[in-house]
Amino acid sequence: MATTTVTGYLLDRLAELGVRHLFGVPGDYNLQLLDEVVAHPAIEWVGTANELGAAYAADGYARMRGIGALLTTSGVGELSALNGLAGSYAELLPVVHITGSPKSAFERTGASVHHTAADGDYERFARAAESVSCALATLTPENAAGEIDRVLLAALRERRPVYLRIPADVATAPIDSAEGALVVAEPEVDEDALQGFLRHAQVVLGRARTAVVLADHLVDRYGAQHELDLLLAESNLPYADLAMGKGLVDESDPRFAGTYFGAFSRPGTREAVESADVLIQAGVRFTDTTSGFFSQQIDATRVIDLQPEAAKVGSALYAGVPLKAALAGLAKLFVDLPPFAVEAPVAGDARAAADAPTLSATARTSSADGLLSQDELWSHVTTFLRGDHFVVADQGTAFFGMSGQPLPAGAGFIGQPLWGSIGYALPALLGAQLADDRRRGILLTGDSAAQMTVQELGSMVRYGVSPIVVLVNNQGYTIERAINGPRAAYNDIAPWNWHTVAAAMTADQALLLTARTALELDEALAEADAAPDRLVFLEVHTGIDDIPPLLARIAAAAGGRAA
Amino acid sequence: MATTTVTGYLLDRLAELGVRHLFGVPGDYNLQLLDEVVAHPAIEWVGTANELGAAYAADGYARMRGIGALLTTSGVGELSALNGLAGSYAELLPVVHITGSPKSAFERTGASVHHTAADGDYERFARAAESVSCALATLTPENAAGEIDRVLLAALRERRPVYLRIPADVATAPIDSAEGALVVAEPEVDEDALQGFLRHAQVVLGRARTAVVLADHLVDRYGAQHELDLLLAESNLPYADLAMGKGLVDESDPRFAGTYFGAFSRPGTREAVESADVLIQAGVRFTDTTSGFFSQQIDATRVIDLQPEAAKVGSALYAGVPLKAALAGLAKLFVDLPPFAVEAPVAGDARAAADAPTLSATARTSSADGLLSQDELWSHVTTFLRGDHFVVADQGTAFFGMSGQPLPAGAGFIGQPLWGSIGYALPALLGAQLADDRRRGILLTGDSAAQMTVQELGSMVRYGVSPIVVLVNNQGYTIERAINGPRAAYNDIAPWNWHTVAAAMTADQALLLTARTALELDEALAEADAAPDRLVFLEVHTGIDDIPPLLARIAAAAGGRAA
Repeated sequence: MATTTVTGYLLDRLAELGVRHLFGVPGDYNLQLLDEVVAHPAIEWVGTANELGAAYAADGYARMRGIGALLTTSGVGELSALNGLAGSYAELLPVVHITGSPKSAFERTGASVHHTAADGDYERFARAAESVSCALATLTPENAAGEIDRVLLAALRERRPVYLRIPADVATAPIDSAEGALVVAEPEVDEDALQGFLRHAQVVLGRARTAVVLADHLVDRYGAQHELDLLLAESNLPYADLAMGKGLVDESDPRFAGTYFGAFSRPGTREAVESADVLIQAGVRFTDTTSGFFSQQIDATRVIDLQPEAAKVGSALYAGVPLKAALAGLAKLFVDLPPFAVEAPVAGDARAAADAPTLSATARTSSADGLLSQDELWSHVTTFLRGDHFVVADQGTAFFGMSGQPLPAGAGFIGQPLWGSIGYALPALLGAQLADDRRRGILLTGDSAAQMTVQELGSMVRYGVSPIVVLVNNQGYTIERAINGPRAAYNDIAPWNWHTVAAAMTADQALLLTARTALELDEALAEADAAPDRLVFLEVHTGIDDIPPLLARIAAAAGGRAA
Repeated sequence: MATTTVTGYLLDRLAELGVRHLFGVPGDYNLQLLDEVVAHPAIEWVGTANELGAAYAADGYARMRGIGALLTTSGVGELSALNGLAGSYAELLPVVHITGSPKSAFERTGASVHHTAADGDYERFARAAESVSCALATLTPENAAGEIDRVLLAALRERRPVYLRIPADVATAPIDSAEGALVVAEPEVDEDALQGFLRHAQVVLGRARTAVVLADHLVDRYGAQHELDLLLAESNLPYADLAMGKGLVDESDPRFAGTYFGAFSRPGTREAVESADVLIQAGVRFTDTTSGFFSQQIDATRVIDLQPEAAKVGSALYAGVPLKAALAGLAKLFVDLPPFAVEAPVAGDARAAADAPTLSATARTSSADGLLSQDELWSHVTTFLRGDHFVVADQGTAFFGMSGQPLPAGAGFIGQPLWGSIGYALPALLGAQLADDRRRGILLTGDSAAQMTVQELGSMVRYGVSPIVVLVNNQGYTIERAINGPRAAYNDIAPWNWHTVAAAMTADQALLLTARTALELDEALAEADAAPDRLVFLEVHTGIDDIPPLLARIAAAAGGRAA
């Protein structure tokens, strides 16, 4: 039997699962492990400026490739990454967190080595990891093969981060190579339940005059994209999405009814979703920011709700009917159902840009001095987008500005509306761009968000990716000004010269652009497009209080929350 | 009875304990709390670029003022700060971590709001905080006064971080104002045990021909600086320190025997500590990096060991004899003891700079091309230092380069040799400088460390502090190159133009200087000294493999650890 090391075994398994890049920061407890990483034929090391950047990058990577991984050092490194992993935990991304810890001889004697609390407790920081991991292991040469396989399978099955602690001596210990592939079992289908569900659905759909599909991110997380495509193709139904599921469906199709935000939706979208005789919810999870603070008005008796492991028709629960099987079954059903009297309930209005009249009344649509407004910003960026782009929008004005904009077919979208960690998007772009070299990434982030994690601009140049970074400079925490303290000092940030920051961190490799008007924005985007092999840093200026209409409503609701 | 709010009560208590600055980042769950912070007469809000910066700054602040505090928002904010708090936990600093969480009505219903894992578990991230906190509380209007007092007292008693979770609605709830001062009880002294200890010590000291005091950081953490000063004054004994206790004793005094590093000490220091007939260990905790990897050769039968809550003479343990009482008692003892035959066992050699011949053989002392060597760097910086300076040295070449250099009387020193989180020092300087406006801070940090947390340069200008930042550019993780992989790509970093970074983040307010030779370094330091009201950013270039002699030995030991 072939032999390898504990690290070699782990890297082979990661490569088998599709990992081609490992993010992280070196530390003296992981250096031997790193020697094997850089020697591995299938995996490239991507050193980030800090560990939070690595965790965000691994999350962005997992969104593109289904799995991501990062390597940190004990204590100082692993804890710095924790917020990034919590985001992966909340938003269901399998991210493998490997941390190198002091060698086991020290642990056995409880030595007061650095990166510990000098109390002999070597499991202290694994306990912190528990709150953001679905499976954890501390490896020994004896348990490594079994524990690595167990933990990796848990990550893929539960779509959550996992944590592997590897003492420095264990990392290089010889063990047998892996034999046989890691097989992630599909969730079991209860065939009787599935047939019962489909019969019930058929009855309900047979009686319906209108039906609409509402798609959300669990379709992506549970690998049911293909089955959703099938359902939409076979049924020819109108469909909508939630902001967290943006990118799942073709938003340029006439059947697309818009992105649903509960009471904050555009009227056509809301009507399509809430008045359909049957609403097929595919992988939907309502959260505050994607549901207009739980303002959805959906009659549960008219819903066919497809969740990861069960389906419901009205109040009837069908356990053992997972999302993929339910979608595939429904798709087949529609082949035999008479066509629906779809009256294109949504055409035009619902797919219009976010400046639809009913919403724009609540926000500044254009500034008097001719400067670029947020409305113009997002609609012009949307006009620029093609199917060979993907968008990463940070959880400020960028996410709320873009989430109502229809994407072209094929374009991807990454946001983090549930976890909502400001600063996430810039390192996530690094990871996503390395994972997806067929589409060009377009980052949309604010200045306060970018201040948190800006150093990964340097990593982008170091690892040769060339996305377009759009930095919206609106002088501070504009999303928070909208909620509380519009002129409070706590919503200010240190003023930076952003072009200079970008130039300095990219060793003058980036193409630096600026836009203060809509025309300048169009020109800058065209210039960026003409430089596909360069990292582009485009600073866009918008008003300090100018926010997207959707955010105005969400901010009002959020402000009310705490009052 | 006067009334306030939960936030008002907390801020009043923090102010009472000496907190004048609260570090942190705004978020929608803490904005109402922040309204009260900015209105509070005694506390200034210091908004940092990210939460790890806030935690590091609060730690630096606590090192100067005995307590520090930071405010984050739920989940995303608090977890980003965790590594900073772990450092405070390991190195015994009371830091109060306040996090604003969703309002209690949401928690009661388990709503899937942002910054949660959408599973109704609102305690998930408090569980992560448990591993780095000695006391935790979730506040309600009913429990707030009691819980705030309990938790703050625990922080001061145990010298550890504490965690307060405040739902947004609770933050503004009215409660009675605090009455009476918070009294931190001194640890109880067992008078019989104390007398027994002193009698025993007297016998041992009476028989001794030589005695030496070895001081470490627990003296500072347990508030026994004054008593240590007394002992040194009354006894006239020679003394040494450990690197973690640097700044406790006057290192310019002829009695100073040097900084002890076990087998890695300079010969005179080692001889003084290890050959004394009696060694009085004051608040000593041996850790790997401060003991030459546990290479101390100290005969326990000849040690009087003063720990926070007990003292030992040889193997005889005296419980109930805390550090302060033991030091004060010993000081009195020496008034009556006949003077020791101190033969100045250490003069000259032990206090010499780190380039003492016995060590420099292991390191490059000067580069052939006339460029600045690490040896020159640390000795020239030391020559520049005055008593109205304090040094913050990051845990790379800077800490190991400076820790063997004798400081002038009155100068302070901040390092983090136990927790050893690279990137700590820059934000810690921000906090320390705000806490101490009588001395000018001098930061010594490497390029890879600074890349992690550089954004707080902007916060320094924003809050009007003007320390001297010395950035040692040696092109990557030099400390790790010394341990493993001297030319491995994983020890490289993205190349930055550091002057441009500093200029951009400080809005061109910083004085930018460069030094490539010893002469240029002296000139630059003089120029910095002539600009006491400006933030100075001095980039110093040293060789990629050039390391301080002490680090060479530690790196060899660290490399051996994992082999």
